[in-house]
Amino acid sequence: MTKRLGINRLALKSMHLPLESTKEEIKYAVDKIQAAGIDLYGAGVIYMKNKEEVDKAFEYARTAGLVTIIGVPEHDLLEYCSQKTEEYDINLAIHNHGPGDKNYPSPKSIYKKVKNLNWRMGLCVDIGHTQRIGEDPVKDTKKYMDRVFDIHIKDVDKSDADGRTLEIGRGVIDIPGFLEMLIKEQYAGVVSFEYEKDGKGPMPGLAESVGYVRGVLATMD
Amino acid sequence: MTKRLGINRLALKSMHLPLESTKEEIKYAVDKIQAAGIDLYGAGVIYMKNKEEVDKAFEYARTAGLVTIIGVPEHDLLEYCSQKTEEYDINLAIHNHGPGDKNYPSPKSIYKKVKNLNWRMGLCVDIGHTQRIGEDPVKDTKKYMDRVFDIHIKDVDKSDADGRTLEIGRGVIDIPGFLEMLIKEQYAGVVSFEYEKDGKGPMPGLAESVGYVRGVLATMD
Repeated sequence: MTKRLGINRLALKSMHLPLESTKEEIKYAVDKIQAAGIDLYGAGVIYMKNKEEVDKAFEYARTAGLVTIIGVPEHDLLEYCSQKTEEYDINLAIHNHGPGDKNYPSPKSIYKKVKNLNWRMGLCVDIGHTQRIGEDPVKDTKKYMDRVFDIHIKDVDKSDADGRTLEIGRGVIDIPGFLEMLIKEQYAGVVSFEYEKDGKGPMPGLAESVGYVRGVLATMD
Repeated sequence: MTKRLGINRLALKSMHLPLESTKEEIKYAVDKIQAAGIDLYGAGVIYMKNKEEVDKAFEYARTAGLVTIIGVPEHDLLEYCSQKTEEYDINLAIHNHGPGDKNYPSPKSIYKKVKNLNWRMGLCVDIGHTQRIGEDPVKDTKKYMDRVFDIHIKDVDKSDADGRTLEIGRGVIDIPGFLEMLIKEQYAGVVSFEYEKDGKGPMPGLAESVGYVRGVLATMD
Protein backbone atom coordinates (compact mmCIF):
# COMPACT_ATOMS: atom_id res chain seq x y z
CA MET A 1 0.00 0.00 0.00
CA THR A 2 2.84 2.39 0.85
CA LYS A 3 4.41 1.83 -2.56
CA ARG A 4 1.09 2.05 -4.40
CA LEU A 5 0.54 5.47 -2.88
CA GLY A 6 3.98 6.74 -3.87
CA ILE A 7 5.15 7.12 -0.29
CA ASN A 8 8.78 6.35 0.46
CA ARG A 9 8.97 6.32 4.25
CA LEU A 10 7.35 3.94 6.65
CA ALA A 11 7.05 3.27 10.37
CA LEU A 12 5.87 -0.15 11.49
CA LYS A 13 3.82 -1.15 14.46
CA SER A 14 4.40 -4.36 16.37
CA MET A 15 1.47 -5.98 14.55
CA HIS A 16 3.53 -5.67 11.35
CA LEU A 17 6.86 -6.71 12.85
CA PRO A 18 6.63 -8.05 16.41
CA LEU A 19 9.07 -6.69 18.98
CA GLU A 20 9.99 -10.29 19.76
CA SER A 21 11.25 -10.89 16.21
CA THR A 22 14.72 -12.40 15.84
CA LYS A 23 17.47 -10.34 14.22
CA GLU A 24 17.05 -12.46 11.09
CA GLU A 25 13.33 -11.78 10.94
CA ILE A 26 13.89 -8.06 11.39
CA LYS A 27 16.58 -7.94 8.71
CA TYR A 28 14.39 -9.94 6.31
CA ALA A 29 11.57 -7.41 6.75
CA VAL A 30 13.90 -4.43 6.41
CA ASP A 31 15.43 -5.84 3.19
CA LYS A 32 12.00 -6.42 1.72
CA ILE A 33 10.92 -2.86 2.53
CA GLN A 34 14.15 -1.39 1.13
CA ALA A 35 13.80 -3.47 -2.04
CA ALA A 36 10.45 -1.76 -2.57
CA GLY A 37 12.20 1.61 -2.44
CA ILE A 38 10.87 2.47 0.98
CA ASP A 39 12.87 3.76 3.94
CA LEU A 40 11.87 2.12 7.22
CA TYR A 41 12.50 5.08 9.46
CA GLY A 42 10.61 4.25 12.62
CA ALA A 43 8.51 1.95 14.74
CA GLY A 44 5.71 2.49 17.15
CA VAL A 45 3.75 3.25 19.11
CA ILE A 46 5.90 1.12 21.47
CA TYR A 47 4.89 1.06 25.14
CA MET A 48 7.73 0.83 27.68
CA LYS A 49 6.78 -0.07 31.23
CA ASN A 50 10.18 -1.10 32.62
CA LYS A 51 13.89 -1.00 31.74
CA GLU A 52 13.77 -4.36 30.00
CA GLU A 53 11.12 -3.06 27.62
CA VAL A 54 13.22 0.03 26.94
CA ASP A 55 16.24 -2.18 26.22
CA LYS A 56 14.18 -4.37 23.92
CA ALA A 57 12.79 -1.41 21.98
CA PHE A 58 16.22 0.11 21.41
CA GLU A 59 17.77 -3.22 20.35
CA TYR A 60 14.90 -3.79 17.92
CA ALA A 61 15.33 -0.27 16.55
CA ARG A 62 19.10 -0.65 16.13
CA THR A 63 18.70 -3.98 14.34
CA ALA A 64 16.15 -2.45 11.97
CA GLY A 65 18.30 0.64 11.40
CA LEU A 66 15.60 3.00 12.59
CA VAL A 67 16.20 6.67 13.29
CA THR A 68 13.13 7.10 15.49
CA ILE A 69 11.21 5.14 18.07
CA ILE A 70 7.66 6.39 18.48
CA GLY A 71 7.05 5.45 22.08
CA VAL A 72 5.24 5.78 25.34
CA PRO A 73 7.66 5.25 28.23
CA GLU A 74 6.55 5.46 31.84
CA HIS A 75 7.55 8.76 33.41
CA ASP A 76 10.13 7.16 35.71
CA LEU A 77 11.92 5.69 32.67
CA LEU A 78 12.51 9.01 30.91
CA GLU A 79 16.03 9.52 32.28
CA TYR A 80 16.93 5.97 31.31
CA CYS A 81 15.42 6.45 27.84
CA SER A 82 17.39 9.65 27.46
CA GLN A 83 20.65 7.76 28.11
CA LYS A 84 19.61 5.12 25.63
CA THR A 85 18.91 7.64 22.86
CA GLU A 86 22.48 8.93 23.23
CA GLU A 87 23.98 5.48 23.43
CA TYR A 88 22.12 4.25 20.33
CA ASP A 89 21.88 7.50 18.35
CA ILE A 90 18.18 6.89 17.98
CA ASN A 91 15.48 9.48 18.68
CA LEU A 92 12.57 8.81 20.97
CA ALA A 93 9.40 10.58 19.82
CA ILE A 94 6.80 10.38 22.57
CA HIS A 95 3.23 10.13 21.39
CA ASN A 96 0.22 11.97 22.85
CA HIS A 97 -2.97 9.93 23.13
CA GLY A 98 -5.53 12.56 24.12
CA PRO A 99 -8.17 12.59 26.84
CA GLY A 100 -7.94 9.50 29.02
CA ASP A 101 -4.17 9.08 28.63
CA LYS A 102 -2.75 9.54 32.13
CA ASN A 103 0.89 9.86 31.08
CA TYR A 104 0.85 11.91 27.90
CA PRO A 105 -2.58 13.34 27.07
CA SER A 106 -1.22 16.35 25.17
CA PRO A 107 1.94 17.52 23.40
CA LYS A 108 2.39 19.98 26.28
CA SER A 109 2.51 17.16 28.80
CA ILE A 110 5.31 15.53 26.79
CA TYR A 111 7.24 18.72 26.20
CA LYS A 112 7.38 19.53 29.90
CA LYS A 113 8.96 16.15 30.55
CA VAL A 114 11.53 16.14 27.73
CA LYS A 115 12.61 19.77 27.35
CA ASN A 116 15.43 19.40 29.88
CA LEU A 117 16.57 16.00 28.61
CA ASN A 118 18.93 15.54 25.67
CA TRP A 119 17.77 16.72 22.25
CA ARG A 120 16.98 13.19 21.04
CA MET A 121 14.04 13.10 23.44
CA GLY A 122 11.08 14.67 21.67
CA LEU A 123 7.54 14.35 20.37
CA CYS A 124 5.48 12.48 17.86
CA VAL A 125 2.50 14.84 17.72
CA ASP A 126 -0.76 13.06 16.96
CA ILE A 127 -2.98 15.85 15.64
CA GLY A 128 -6.12 13.77 16.05
CA HIS A 129 -5.59 13.34 19.76
CA THR A 130 -4.53 16.99 19.99
CA GLN A 131 -7.84 18.07 18.46
CA ARG A 132 -9.74 15.64 20.70
CA ILE A 133 -8.27 17.25 23.82
CA GLY A 134 -9.54 20.63 22.65
CA GLU A 135 -6.28 22.13 21.44
CA ASP A 136 -5.76 23.59 17.98
CA PRO A 137 -3.14 21.37 16.29
CA VAL A 138 -1.85 24.36 14.31
CA LYS A 139 -1.06 26.59 17.29
CA ASP A 140 -0.26 23.80 19.69
CA THR A 141 2.21 21.90 17.51
CA LYS A 142 3.99 25.15 16.66
CA LYS A 143 4.78 25.75 20.34
CA TYR A 144 6.77 22.58 20.70
CA MET A 145 8.32 22.49 17.24
CA ASP A 146 11.93 22.37 18.43
CA ARG A 147 11.29 18.90 19.82
CA VAL A 148 8.95 17.46 17.19
CA PHE A 149 10.48 14.59 15.19
CA ASP A 150 7.38 12.92 13.90
CA ILE A 151 3.73 13.77 13.29
CA HIS A 152 0.74 11.48 12.97
CA ILE A 153 -1.46 13.29 10.49
CA LYS A 154 -5.14 12.37 10.43
CA ASP A 155 -8.57 13.87 10.83
CA VAL A 156 -11.30 13.50 13.46
CA ASP A 157 -15.02 14.19 13.29
CA LYS A 158 -15.31 16.11 16.57
CA SER A 159 -13.14 18.29 18.81
CA ASP A 160 -13.81 16.31 21.97
CA ALA A 161 -13.01 13.03 23.65
CA ASP A 162 -15.66 11.22 21.58
CA GLY A 163 -14.06 12.35 18.32
CA ARG A 164 -13.47 9.50 15.89
CA THR A 165 -10.89 9.36 13.19
CA LEU A 166 -11.84 9.41 9.51
CA GLU A 167 -10.54 10.29 6.06
CA ILE A 168 -8.41 13.45 6.00
CA GLY A 169 -10.56 16.32 4.78
CA ARG A 170 -13.84 14.91 6.04
CA GLY A 171 -13.33 15.99 9.64
CA VAL A 172 -12.77 19.14 11.64
CA ILE A 173 -8.98 19.57 11.63
CA ASP A 174 -7.63 22.55 9.70
CA ILE A 175 -5.30 20.54 7.45
CA PRO A 176 -4.38 23.42 5.11
CA GLY A 177 -3.54 25.59 8.14
CA PHE A 178 -1.53 22.80 9.70
CA LEU A 179 0.54 22.13 6.58
CA GLU A 180 1.09 25.83 6.02
CA MET A 181 2.41 26.14 9.58
CA LEU A 182 4.82 23.22 9.02
CA ILE A 183 6.18 24.88 5.89
CA LYS A 184 6.55 28.28 7.57
CA GLU A 185 8.30 26.70 10.54
CA GLN A 186 10.57 24.78 8.15
CA TYR A 187 9.69 21.52 9.87
CA ALA A 188 12.25 18.94 8.79
CA GLY A 189 10.83 15.83 10.43
CA VAL A 190 8.41 13.24 9.17
CA VAL A 191 4.67 13.59 8.64
CA SER A 192 3.22 10.12 8.79
CA PHE A 193 -0.26 9.00 7.76
CA GLU A 194 -1.75 7.08 10.66
CA TYR A 195 -5.04 5.95 9.15
CA GLU A 196 -6.92 3.96 11.76
CA LYS A 197 -10.39 3.74 10.26
CA ASP A 198 -11.31 0.69 8.15
CA GLY A 199 -8.65 -1.54 9.71
CA LYS A 200 -9.61 -4.41 7.45
CA GLY A 201 -9.50 -2.38 4.25
CA PRO A 202 -7.72 0.91 4.80
CA MET A 203 -6.66 1.53 1.20
CA PRO A 204 -9.53 3.71 -0.07
CA GLY A 205 -9.55 6.02 2.94
CA LEU A 206 -5.77 6.13 3.17
CA ALA A 207 -5.48 6.91 -0.54
CA GLU A 208 -8.08 9.67 -0.21
CA SER A 209 -6.15 11.10 2.76
CA VAL A 210 -2.83 11.02 0.91
CA GLY A 211 -4.42 12.66 -2.12
CA TYR A 212 -5.94 15.35 0.06
CA VAL A 213 -2.62 16.29 1.63
CA ARG A 214 -0.93 16.36 -1.79
CA GLY A 215 -3.71 18.55 -3.15
CA VAL A 216 -3.33 21.03 -0.31
CA LEU A 217 0.46 21.08 -0.72
CA ALA A 218 0.12 21.65 -4.46
CA THR A 219 -1.44 25.03 -3.72
CA MET A 220 1.46 26.00 -1.44
CA ASP A 221 4.37 25.59 -3.86
CA MET B 1 -17.07 3.03 -4.93
CA THR B 2 -18.96 6.26 -5.62
CA LYS B 3 -20.66 6.06 -2.24
CA ARG B 4 -17.48 5.05 -0.41
CA LEU B 5 -15.81 8.20 -1.74
CA GLY B 6 -18.64 10.48 -0.65
CA ILE B 7 -19.60 11.43 -4.18
CA ASN B 8 -23.27 11.92 -4.96
CA ARG B 9 -23.42 12.17 -8.73
CA LEU B 10 -22.63 9.52 -11.29
CA ALA B 11 -22.53 9.01 -15.03
CA LEU B 12 -22.54 5.46 -16.35
CA LYS B 13 -20.88 4.01 -19.40
CA SER B 14 -22.48 1.28 -21.47
CA MET B 15 -20.27 -1.31 -19.77
CA HIS B 16 -22.15 -0.52 -16.54
CA LEU B 17 -25.62 -0.33 -18.06
CA PRO B 18 -25.81 -1.46 -21.70
CA LEU B 19 -27.63 0.77 -24.17
CA GLU B 20 -29.67 -2.29 -25.15
CA SER B 21 -31.11 -2.63 -21.63
CA THR B 22 -34.87 -2.93 -21.32
CA LYS B 23 -36.81 -0.18 -19.56
CA GLU B 24 -37.15 -2.48 -16.56
CA GLU B 25 -33.42 -3.09 -16.41
CA ILE B 26 -32.71 0.63 -16.62
CA LYS B 27 -35.24 1.47 -13.93
CA TYR B 28 -33.87 -1.25 -11.69
CA ALA B 29 -30.35 0.22 -11.99
CA VAL B 30 -31.59 3.77 -11.44
CA ASP B 31 -33.53 2.76 -8.32
CA LYS B 32 -30.49 1.01 -6.91
CA ILE B 33 -28.30 4.06 -7.51
CA GLN B 34 -30.88 6.43 -6.01
CA ALA B 35 -31.28 4.18 -2.98
CA ALA B 36 -27.54 4.66 -2.38
CA GLY B 37 -28.10 8.42 -2.29
CA ILE B 38 -26.51 9.00 -5.67
CA ASP B 39 -27.95 11.02 -8.54
CA LEU B 40 -27.49 9.33 -11.91
CA TYR B 41 -27.09 12.46 -13.99
CA GLY B 42 -25.55 11.22 -17.20
CA ALA B 43 -24.30 8.48 -19.46
CA GLY B 44 -21.44 8.20 -21.86
CA VAL B 45 -19.33 8.39 -23.77
CA ILE B 46 -22.04 7.24 -26.26
CA TYR B 47 -21.06 7.06 -29.92
CA MET B 48 -23.79 7.90 -32.44
CA LYS B 49 -23.15 6.95 -36.03
CA ASN B 50 -26.68 7.18 -37.45
CA LYS B 51 -30.16 8.45 -36.54
CA GLU B 52 -31.16 5.14 -34.99
CA GLU B 53 -28.28 5.35 -32.58
CA VAL B 54 -29.23 8.91 -31.70
CA ASP B 55 -32.82 7.78 -31.08
CA LYS B 56 -31.62 4.90 -28.93
CA ALA B 57 -29.35 7.13 -26.84
CA PHE B 58 -32.10 9.65 -26.14
CA GLU B 59 -34.67 6.98 -25.27
CA TYR B 60 -32.18 5.36 -22.90
CA ALA B 61 -31.43 8.74 -21.33
CA ARG B 62 -35.12 9.58 -20.90
CA THR B 63 -35.87 6.22 -19.31
CA ALA B 64 -32.99 6.69 -16.88
CA GLY B 65 -34.02 10.28 -16.12
CA LEU B 66 -30.65 11.69 -17.18
CA VAL B 67 -30.00 15.38 -17.67
CA THR B 68 -26.95 14.91 -19.87
CA ILE B 69 -25.76 12.56 -22.58
CA ILE B 70 -22.00 12.61 -22.94
CA GLY B 71 -21.69 11.74 -26.59
CA VAL B 72 -19.84 11.62 -29.84
CA PRO B 73 -22.28 12.08 -32.74
CA GLU B 74 -21.09 12.11 -36.35
CA HIS B 75 -20.96 15.65 -37.71
CA ASP B 76 -23.89 15.11 -40.06
CA LEU B 77 -26.09 14.14 -37.10
CA LEU B 78 -25.58 17.37 -35.16
CA GLU B 79 -28.71 19.08 -36.46
CA TYR B 80 -30.73 15.98 -35.69
CA CYS B 81 -29.19 15.75 -32.21
CA SER B 82 -30.01 19.39 -31.64
CA GLN B 83 -33.69 18.72 -32.37
CA LYS B 84 -33.60 15.73 -30.04
CA THR B 85 -32.15 17.73 -27.14
CA GLU B 86 -35.09 20.14 -27.42
CA GLU B 87 -37.64 17.39 -27.82
CA TYR B 88 -36.32 15.44 -24.80
CA ASP B 89 -35.05 18.33 -22.62
CA ILE B 90 -31.75 16.49 -22.32
CA ASN B 91 -28.34 18.10 -22.89
CA LEU B 92 -25.81 16.64 -25.25
CA ALA B 93 -22.24 17.21 -24.03
CA ILE B 94 -19.83 16.32 -26.81
CA HIS B 95 -16.55 14.84 -25.67
CA ASN B 96 -13.09 15.68 -27.06
CA HIS B 97 -10.74 12.73 -27.47
CA GLY B 98 -7.45 14.42 -28.33
CA PRO B 99 -4.93 13.74 -31.07
CA GLY B 100 -6.12 11.01 -33.43
CA ASP B 101 -9.80 11.84 -33.01
CA LYS B 102 -10.98 12.93 -36.48
CA ASN B 103 -14.32 14.37 -35.38
CA TYR B 104 -13.64 16.11 -32.09
CA PRO B 105 -9.95 16.29 -31.21
CA SER B 106 -10.27 19.45 -29.12
CA PRO B 107 -12.87 21.50 -27.26
CA LYS B 108 -12.45 24.13 -29.98
CA SER B 109 -13.47 21.65 -32.68
CA ILE B 110 -16.66 20.92 -30.73
CA TYR B 111 -17.45 24.54 -29.93
CA LYS B 112 -17.27 25.56 -33.59
CA LYS B 113 -19.89 22.93 -34.42
CA VAL B 114 -22.34 23.59 -31.58
CA LYS B 115 -22.17 27.35 -30.99
CA ASN B 116 -24.93 28.05 -33.51
CA LEU B 117 -27.14 25.16 -32.43
CA ASN B 118 -29.55 25.34 -29.49
CA TRP B 119 -28.09 25.87 -26.03
CA ARG B 120 -28.53 22.22 -25.02
CA MET B 121 -25.76 21.30 -27.46
CA GLY B 122 -22.46 21.71 -25.64
CA LEU B 123 -19.23 20.18 -24.39
CA CYS B 124 -17.94 17.60 -21.99
CA VAL B 125 -14.35 18.83 -21.74
CA ASP B 126 -11.88 16.05 -21.11
CA ILE B 127 -8.88 17.87 -19.65
CA GLY B 128 -6.58 14.91 -20.20
CA HIS B 129 -7.18 14.89 -23.94
CA THR B 130 -6.98 18.69 -23.95
CA GLN B 131 -3.53 18.53 -22.38
CA ARG B 132 -2.50 15.75 -24.77
CA ILE B 133 -3.32 17.91 -27.78
CA GLY B 134 -1.02 20.62 -26.42
CA GLU B 135 -3.62 23.03 -25.11
CA ASP B 136 -3.67 24.39 -21.56
CA PRO B 137 -6.89 23.07 -19.99
CA VAL B 138 -7.16 26.20 -17.82
CA LYS B 139 -7.14 28.72 -20.66
CA ASP B 140 -8.78 26.48 -23.22
CA THR B 141 -11.76 25.40 -21.12
CA LYS B 142 -12.38 28.99 -20.08
CA LYS B 143 -12.87 30.02 -23.72
CA TYR B 144 -15.80 27.70 -24.24
CA MET B 145 -17.33 27.93 -20.79
CA ASP B 146 -20.76 29.09 -21.95
CA ARG B 147 -21.28 25.67 -23.55
CA VAL B 148 -19.57 23.39 -21.02
CA PHE B 149 -22.00 21.09 -19.18
CA ASP B 150 -19.63 18.41 -18.01
CA ILE B 151 -15.90 17.99 -17.38
CA HIS B 152 -13.84 14.84 -17.21
CA ILE B 153 -11.20 15.68 -14.66
CA LYS B 154 -8.03 13.58 -14.68
CA ASP B 155 -4.28 13.90 -15.02
CA VAL B 156 -1.82 12.79 -17.70
CA ASP B 157 1.91 12.22 -17.51
CA LYS B 158 2.86 14.13 -20.67
CA SER B 159 1.54 17.02 -22.77
CA ASP B 160 1.56 15.11 -26.05
CA ALA B 161 -0.25 12.37 -27.92
CA ASP B 162 1.63 9.68 -25.97
CA GLY B 163 0.46 11.07 -22.65
CA ARG B 164 -1.07 8.46 -20.38
CA THR B 165 -3.58 9.01 -17.67
CA LEU B 166 -2.69 8.54 -14.00
CA GLU B 167 -3.66 9.60 -10.47
CA ILE B 168 -4.62 13.28 -10.23
CA GLY B 169 -1.67 15.21 -8.86
CA ARG B 170 0.98 12.88 -10.23
CA GLY B 171 0.89 14.25 -13.76
CA VAL B 172 1.42 17.53 -15.58
CA ILE B 173 -2.01 19.18 -15.49
CA ASP B 174 -2.34 22.33 -13.38
CA ILE B 175 -5.21 21.08 -11.23
CA PRO B 176 -5.17 23.97 -8.72
CA GLY B 177 -5.20 26.46 -11.62
CA PHE B 178 -8.01 24.56 -13.32
CA LEU B 179 -10.22 24.44 -10.23
CA GLU B 180 -9.52 28.09 -9.45
CA MET B 181 -10.64 28.99 -12.97
CA LEU B 182 -13.88 27.00 -12.56
CA ILE B 183 -14.65 28.85 -9.32
CA LYS B 184 -13.87 32.27 -10.79
CA GLU B 185 -16.00 31.51 -13.85
CA GLN B 186 -18.81 30.31 -11.54
CA TYR B 187 -19.02 27.05 -13.46
CA ALA B 188 -22.32 25.41 -12.52
CA GLY B 189 -21.96 22.11 -14.35
CA VAL B 190 -20.55 18.79 -13.26
CA VAL B 191 -16.90 17.87 -12.72
CA SER B 192 -16.68 14.13 -13.11
CA PHE B 193 -13.76 11.86 -12.15
CA GLU B 194 -12.97 9.71 -15.18
CA TYR B 195 -10.26 7.49 -13.77
CA GLU B 196 -9.12 5.14 -16.51
CA LYS B 197 -5.91 3.72 -15.05
CA ASP B 198 -6.09 0.42 -13.13
CA GLY B 199 -9.32 -0.73 -14.79
CA LYS B 200 -9.39 -3.88 -12.69
CA GLY B 201 -8.84 -2.09 -9.39
CA PRO B 202 -9.43 1.62 -9.74
CA MET B 203 -10.27 2.34 -6.10
CA PRO B 204 -6.85 3.40 -4.73
CA GLY B 205 -6.03 5.73 -7.62
CA LEU B 206 -9.55 7.09 -7.80
CA ALA B 207 -9.61 7.71 -4.05
CA GLU B 208 -6.24 9.47 -4.23
CA SER B 209 -7.57 11.63 -7.10
CA VAL B 210 -10.74 12.53 -5.22
CA GLY B 211 -8.74 13.39 -2.11
CA TYR B 212 -6.39 15.56 -4.16
CA VAL B 213 -9.21 17.62 -5.64
CA ARG B 214 -10.81 18.04 -2.22
CA GLY B 215 -7.48 19.12 -0.76
CA VAL B 216 -6.99 21.74 -3.44
CA LEU B 217 -10.56 23.00 -2.99
CA ALA B 218 -10.08 23.23 0.78
CA THR B 219 -7.48 25.93 0.22
CA MET B 220 -9.89 27.93 -1.98
CA ASP B 221 -12.79 28.34 0.44
